[in-house]
Amino acid sequence: MTTQVDEAFKKIQSSDRVEGFIILDIDGVPIKSTIGNSATVQYSSLVQMIIGISKHMFKKFDASDVLMSMRLHTKKNEIIIILDKLYTMIVIQSPSGVKPPM
Amino acid sequence: MTTQVDEAFKKIQSSDRVEGFIILDIDGVPIKSTIGNSATVQYSSLVQMIIGISKHMFKKFDASDVLMSMRLHTKKNEIIIILDKLYTMIVIQSPSGVKPPM
Repeated sequence: MTTQVDEAFKKIQSSDRVEGFIILDIDGVPIKSTIGNSATVQYSSLVQMIIGISKHMFKKFDASDVLMSMRLHTKKNEIIIILDKLYTMIVIQSPSGVKPPM
Repeated sequence: MTTQVDEAFKKIQSSDRVEGFIILDIDGVPIKSTIGNSATVQYSSLVQMIIGISKHMFKKFDASDVLMSMRLHTKKNEIIIILDKLYTMIVIQSPSGVKPPM
């Protein structure tokens, strides 16, 4: 991956709140992840199901509408999903602003 | 529903960006909606599927975690889902800040 992309990853990861992130390719295959394998596979597959249903929902009302991002907020976590034509980025961060102990 | 609740609904609906909202009871049955029947049914069922998978995903990593809200952002719409113990609120709004022509 280009240095520009690597710089962006470093910037994301330097944020106190970010616990990890995953990049999926156009087929939903994780191509980069900063968290463990099993968590990566689980997050990737479940996030894709959520994306699939969400896309289906929006298309029902407007076929030209395009899903761009999602933010899931829980008591202990926040997951931000950013969709691009070629990639999907999943960022897992703690909502409290304090990086959890590793 | 109490006047307090009605006041809250009026306030939400007075926002320029809000196109409509739906309230689901604990069983996911729509009990109040400001949009058409068929759209209400479709949004309600699909949003519940998204909530179900999201809850499942978070519980996989931390059984004590609780899904509180979701924000789905597309080119033409934004859907905010707020989960409470007894109710789920779905707000459909336009991201552009301009209320679309009715």
